[in-house]
Amino acid sequence: MKTRGIAFQGEHGAYSEEAVHQHFGTETDTVPCKTISEVFNLTETGEVQHGVVPVENSIEGSVHETYDSLITSNTKITGEIVLRVVHCLIALPSTTISDVKVIYSHPQALAQCRGYLATLGVEVKVSYDTAGSVKMIRDGRMKDAAAVASMGAAQIYEMNVLRQGIEDYGHNYTRFLVMSAKESERAPMCKTSVIFSVPHVPGSLYASLETFATHGVNLTKIESRPTRQRPWEYYFFLDSEGHRDEAAQKEALRELVKRTTFLKVLGSYPRARPEPPQ
Amino acid sequence: MKTRGIAFQGEHGAYSEEAVHQHFGTETDTVPCKTISEVFNLTETGEVQHGVVPVENSIEGSVHETYDSLITSNTKITGEIVLRVVHCLIALPSTTISDVKVIYSHPQALAQCRGYLATLGVEVKVSYDTAGSVKMIRDGRMKDAAAVASMGAAQIYEMNVLRQGIEDYGHNYTRFLVMSAKESERAPMCKTSVIFSVPHVPGSLYASLETFATHGVNLTKIESRPTRQRPWEYYFFLDSEGHRDEAAQKEALRELVKRTTFLKVLGSYPRARPEPPQ
Repeated sequence: MKTRGIAFQGEHGAYSEEAVHQHFGTETDTVPCKTISEVFNLTETGEVQHGVVPVENSIEGSVHETYDSLITSNTKITGEIVLRVVHCLIALPSTTISDVKVIYSHPQALAQCRGYLATLGVEVKVSYDTAGSVKMIRDGRMKDAAAVASMGAAQIYEMNVLRQGIEDYGHNYTRFLVMSAKESERAPMCKTSVIFSVPHVPGSLYASLETFATHGVNLTKIESRPTRQRPWEYYFFLDSEGHRDEAAQKEALRELVKRTTFLKVLGSYPRARPEPPQ
Repeated sequence: MKTRGIAFQGEHGAYSEEAVHQHFGTETDTVPCKTISEVFNLTETGEVQHGVVPVENSIEGSVHETYDSLITSNTKITGEIVLRVVHCLIALPSTTISDVKVIYSHPQALAQCRGYLATLGVEVKVSYDTAGSVKMIRDGRMKDAAAVASMGAAQIYEMNVLRQGIEDYGHNYTRFLVMSAKESERAPMCKTSVIFSVPHVPGSLYASLETFATHGVNLTKIESRPTRQRPWEYYFFLDSEGHRDEAAQKEALRELVKRTTFLKVLGSYPRARPEPPQ
């Protein structure tokens, strides 16, 4: 089996593919996938070297589908990427902004441009993909339509950028995870990500966080997802500073095992550099 | 100004309207709104008695738009409703299941029937609304289309139910919040919901949860949303047991003020009855 390059969700020109290029270089071979869970599958079976999936946007928050895949997949997190998101309004070369009657994009991209799009007063339609919307408008020669997508998508499909930087907030960043079939080597300046569930008794979430506080491990993110087994019971996702082989993390995780009903270490990986400006 | 009934998001026949009927009775006057933030606005200005908004589904997790509205709105939470969600596949009376080439619904409803829909092997398209998809198929006489929506939506639009109970998980419940312009009276068996943000220093989230543990207050849910002011800084939403005027809650909240940079009490309200079976 020939191992292909890096899998990402979406059509060529997707933000996820931009993240791949930022992290692995622009010459990297990329493999488009229909869904995030397909990215996980190709990574787990070794059909690709790595998968890159969005996990969180600084404006719209967490990407549920990625968190749900992390529960069931056996892949490991071996890196993270932070990408500055610049949304463009993209149409056929012959289309002017006053021709546009309908705008297509992924719900998250539309949400991030809500304020700008409201000023246009045109119909907004959801689709599965940002770059895919650009492709659809090109293939269908849709003269009264525009898509919200990246500059890269406009270039790939030879379409026109009507407006650039239409996102409502300038500090719009998406954080991606690099997924791999195997764990990465120890490195400095790491984060460790874990999933766990806690007993259904008062104070159990607090007790699990206490293990990190006791050992001086700084938490950078907590997220919860339903277990789907019993209503209102959750998996917690915790990102914290340090590699799992460093003493403080090691002690915290050893203690955490005793206070949880389920614990899975998703991986230790170098923190994204550069961090976005604060 | 005449105060109208209860506002909800979606078209008539939406699950939110079912929740209104379950809680306030089937004779209640309902006011459909295009968006969740419109429900909050009508409630805040007193144009409706209450608003009812979905906050969490037992399979798909939290509804981001509701959490974001809770940050900015001045409304109070005065109740909660738990609704058992039964999804139906709905089409024109002349359409049989083998005629269906495309299925429309809200992304959350589609996600909850992912397994069943995959067995049909037809195209799936996202729309803004479950009941709205039924209405669209009826109005457009779309003979090769079906929608995923409630039994109530099929009845209202006089459409045919091709399959009932197509959700992948039987324990599919949605939790709704009752929003009001003013706080509710003290009652037994309450929950209290708060939003807060913490200083950007190690251990600050843990320190804020400690206030509840110290006073023996049981946490039932924690959720985070981006502040949108600085990347990777969050508002935390916390539900806990007890009314804000009860001694333990009162002490916990008094201590919490000192450990947070922002704190808003969203309300104390009676817990939903009956709880779903465990």
